[in-house]
Amino acid sequence: MNFSKIQSFSIRLKTNKIFELFVIGIIVFSALLIGAKTYEIPTSAMSVLKLLDWFITFIFLFEIVIRFIAEENKKLFFTKGWNIFDTLIVIVSLIPIEDSELALVGRLIRIFRVMRMVSFVPELRLLLNSLLRALPQLGYVVLLMFIIFYIYAAIGSSFFAGINSELWGDISISMLTLFRVMTFEDWTDVMYEIMDVHSLSWIYFLSFIFLTTFAFLNMVIGIVVNVLEDEHSKEKEAQDKEEGKLTIEDLSAQINELKKLISNK
Amino acid sequence: MNFSKIQSFSIRLKTNKIFELFVIGIIVFSALLIGAKTYEIPTSAMSVLKLLDWFITFIFLFEIVIRFIAEENKKLFFTKGWNIFDTLIVIVSLIPIEDSELALVGRLIRIFRVMRMVSFVPELRLLLNSLLRALPQLGYVVLLMFIIFYIYAAIGSSFFAGINSELWGDISISMLTLFRVMTFEDWTDVMYEIMDVHSLSWIYFLSFIFLTTFAFLNMVIGIVVNVLEDEHSKEKEAQDKEEGKLTIEDLSAQINELKKLISNK
Amino acid sequence: MNFSKIQSFSIRLKTNKIFELFVIGIIVFSALLIGAKTYEIPTSAMSVLKLLDWFITFIFLFEIVIRFIAEENKKLFFTKGWNIFDTLIVIVSLIPIEDSELALVGRLIRIFRVMRMVSFVPELRLLLNSLLRALPQLGYVVLLMFIIFYIYAAIGSSFFAGINSELWGDISISMLTLFRVMTFEDWTDVMYEIMDVHSLSWIYFLSFIFLTTFAFLNMVIGIVVNVLEDEHSKEKEAQDKEEGKLTIEDLSAQINELKKLISNK
Amino acid sequence: MNFSKIQSFSIRLKTNKIFELFVIGIIVFSALLIGAKTYEIPTSAMSVLKLLDWFITFIFLFEIVIRFIAEENKKLFFTKGWNIFDTLIVIVSLIPIEDSELALVGRLIRIFRVMRMVSFVPELRLLLNSLLRALPQLGYVVLLMFIIFYIYAAIGSSFFAGINSELWGDISISMLTLFRVMTFEDWTDVMYEIMDVHSLSWIYFLSFIFLTTFAFLNMVIGIVVNVLEDEHSKEKEAQDKEEGKLTIEDLSAQINELKKLISNK
Repeated sequence: MNFSKIQSFSIRLKTNKIFELFVIGIIVFSALLIGAKTYEIPTSAMSVLKLLDWFITFIFLFEIVIRFIAEENKKLFFTKGWNIFDTLIVIVSLIPIEDSELALVGRLIRIFRVMRMVSFVPELRLLLNSLLRALPQLGYVVLLMFIIFYIYAAIGSSFFAGINSELWGDISISMLTLFRVMTFEDWTDVMYEIMDVHSLSWIYFLSFIFLTTFAFLNMVIGIVVNVLEDEHSKEKEAQDKEEGKLTIEDLSAQINELKKLISNK
Repeated sequence: MNFSKIQSFSIRLKTNKIFELFVIGIIVFSALLIGAKTYEIPTSAMSVLKLLDWFITFIFLFEIVIRFIAEENKKLFFTKGWNIFDTLIVIVSLIPIEDSELALVGRLIRIFRVMRMVSFVPELRLLLNSLLRALPQLGYVVLLMFIIFYIYAAIGSSFFAGINSELWGDISISMLTLFRVMTFEDWTDVMYEIMDVHSLSWIYFLSFIFLTTFAFLNMVIGIVVNVLEDEHSKEKEAQDKEEGKLTIEDLSAQINELKKLISNK
Repeated sequence: MNFSKIQSFSIRLKTNKIFELFVIGIIVFSALLIGAKTYEIPTSAMSVLKLLDWFITFIFLFEIVIRFIAEENKKLFFTKGWNIFDTLIVIVSLIPIEDSELALVGRLIRIFRVMRMVSFVPELRLLLNSLLRALPQLGYVVLLMFIIFYIYAAIGSSFFAGINSELWGDISISMLTLFRVMTFEDWTDVMYEIMDVHSLSWIYFLSFIFLTTFAFLNMVIGIVVNVLEDEHSKEKEAQDKEEGKLTIEDLSAQINELKKLISNK
Repeated sequence: MNFSKIQSFSIRLKTNKIFELFVIGIIVFSALLIGAKTYEIPTSAMSVLKLLDWFITFIFLFEIVIRFIAEENKKLFFTKGWNIFDTLIVIVSLIPIEDSELALVGRLIRIFRVMRMVSFVPELRLLLNSLLRALPQLGYVVLLMFIIFYIYAAIGSSFFAGINSELWGDISISMLTLFRVMTFEDWTDVMYEIMDVHSLSWIYFLSFIFLTTFAFLNMVIGIVVNVLEDEHSKEKEAQDKEEGKLTIEDLSAQINELKKLISNK
């Protein structure tokens, strides 16, 4: 049959090392194109860039179609997040947009094509997945941090709004200011200004810094060490098995054998 | 009896999942209300906010009463820190304060109601407890840090007060300045000013930075890793037991059995 | 004999809990006194402070004498670093200095009396010792860091001295500037100034930041984790022994017993 | 034969402790010379420095020749990176350069002679090697970081170039600006300027800070902990073997012996 021929060709092409390298090359090239556009370029070169842009879009389209055809179970194709991401990027790139408003969206989409690097290289996909897997563990710590920020921002905008409304005008501005304090960015300027009015306000700032620094460090190191230990113990277990090391279970089996031997005598 | 009926109703209500979500909703709503107040709002909306405030206070009062009635042993209720915290927040919220001086205190209390989030969600309570549990381990390191700060601040205010009294005026101001130096916040400005007079003062600043950075890192990482390892080893032990892994003790028992078998032969 | 009576009295006094707390109290009091002097105080109070200063010095002298008498082996007394430190502090405090030049030294000595807190409280002494013990491990990393700093400072003062002699004048000033860059303190101002002349100098700054950040992190975390793991493994070993857990050695002994039993049959 | 005599003399000299210390001394001296040149010095002293420079160069040449002769297998000599590095430094130092353009290169080469410290002291060489060994593990994380930087820089230079072309002019300038934001260096100034035009741009900056901080921490801590654990486990294994601790394998052998004993009875 004709379709099965196309499919088997697609599978061969998809797993072909050279085709893979070619697509990676195109992704890198599209990234360079995006970078080149940010420099001042003559209008003549601009039209060449536009052409190259269409060329890249069609190669991406071709690659997606090949991947779709190569997929045995068509339904499973769109259950994978990266496939949906790739398809969306290509489809939006295909829509011709001339309107200046939407042109910005089109540019953004072209920029996100660089992310295809992550979707295409398995090692990067793995890395990103492991980073994302660490996030849910953060859930409650992030919530606690948010509560700390919210309480301090509420106090800040209630008491300091009259002193500097640009920094403490309302609760959302205050939270941004507190994030700035947390990164130690000119935080003393913020504090000295308030201390001129409320001389004890250093308690507010220092307690905030201690709380957030401690919670933040606790959080980040905690998760990283946890993830690492897990991976390390997995590796070691796998290694032990490979090397055929004896376990306590093996010993127990040996002793049982002995027991039988003695009993049968 | 009537009271036991109320009690059993309270217990049922307290453990009811929907009631729990409702209270969390009210806490979130009260937090949003506090945030909303920091924005410019028309006076008509202000009176609505005041009404909502009373509504929230009464729901909190109701929830505390339910929890109190549901408690089997009334004496134990006030031995739990969070119960005392919740009750205090509600009682102070109930006092009508119009005086502008006390109004600020009232506002603060309303802000602290957001903390009820922590007292209500068990996971957050656990997290905060584990953070607090790490603190006593810090005891002597914090004392050492304080001694380092105190000695450097005493030197600073003795020798640099004449150069810039705003930064080195007395020992408490000097400690605040040193904390600023520790966070690297424009610390070179502070140092260059002193170096114009005492050209060797960079020794003072660099030694301080080295001492505190090293002690601080030592402290924070130390505790976090310690706590983590403890938890990790506990988890692993629990897991090993669940999986019914054989221990050296089990082997010993097997060998002893063997011994008896041989002896009895 | 009279002396042995004094000695036994000294030993009793030295190990007396109340006397210990009294000395700690005096140390804290002397620290507060140093802090108080940094504030503006009337001359009448000043003379009171001076009197208290002498009072503290004599109590410290008394305490040192007691400790010296209580020491069984007089020769060992001055082999302990902290004893020498304490004695020096007390002796220098005893010298009456009126000359304004030396008065500063006298003030410094009085400030260092706060360090007696560390020499007196065993837990703090232990903590400081463990920090100091970690230092030699740093030896070669610090040397490597110094070489990196030296090379970059030599390059900096060779090429950038003409641009800003205040920051790059000679190699020692350049090293201070590089330390500032390492702490990210207004480092872009330093870089932008150089980039106006040498547009590729960002390579110099970025490579320096990467090298030092990576080496620094490597160093600090390395040592802390190392020290921690050592202590942790020691603790665990001690715990295992206490709990009388069976080891592989115990099992081996049991099996050997079995062997004898079988052989003797 | 004459050559073998020279060779055996070279080997003796190369492994001589005093010769080693002498070369280290010369390296330190050449480093001090480089430092001295950055200070204002009279022309008379300058000619002395030049003479000393030649003296050092010839000692380095002598030392390299000795090392080359001492090497049994001449072919292996230039397969070691550090030997090539040392030889290059010495050869370039020998070329007399008077031209002001090349003089700078000459100066740079003289500065890099300080690196000979690393090539000569084995402990430093080991340290640098272990740092370099950690780098390839970083490979994909650095790539991911670069992709994040590239995407954000592309967005930044596309949308913010009109606001401040000095910070967002093209994609390479934007990447430098983003690196600055990542080090928290006056990042709020950068953000506030953009927020005046695009009020929601804080999302851009905060998401960038979160992503890079998290990825960076993940990366650095990850590798350091990994390397440490590896070294630690190696140490422990080596220690266990030295102490002749029994392993499960030993126990298994003992049990097998027992089995034979029983079977043979």
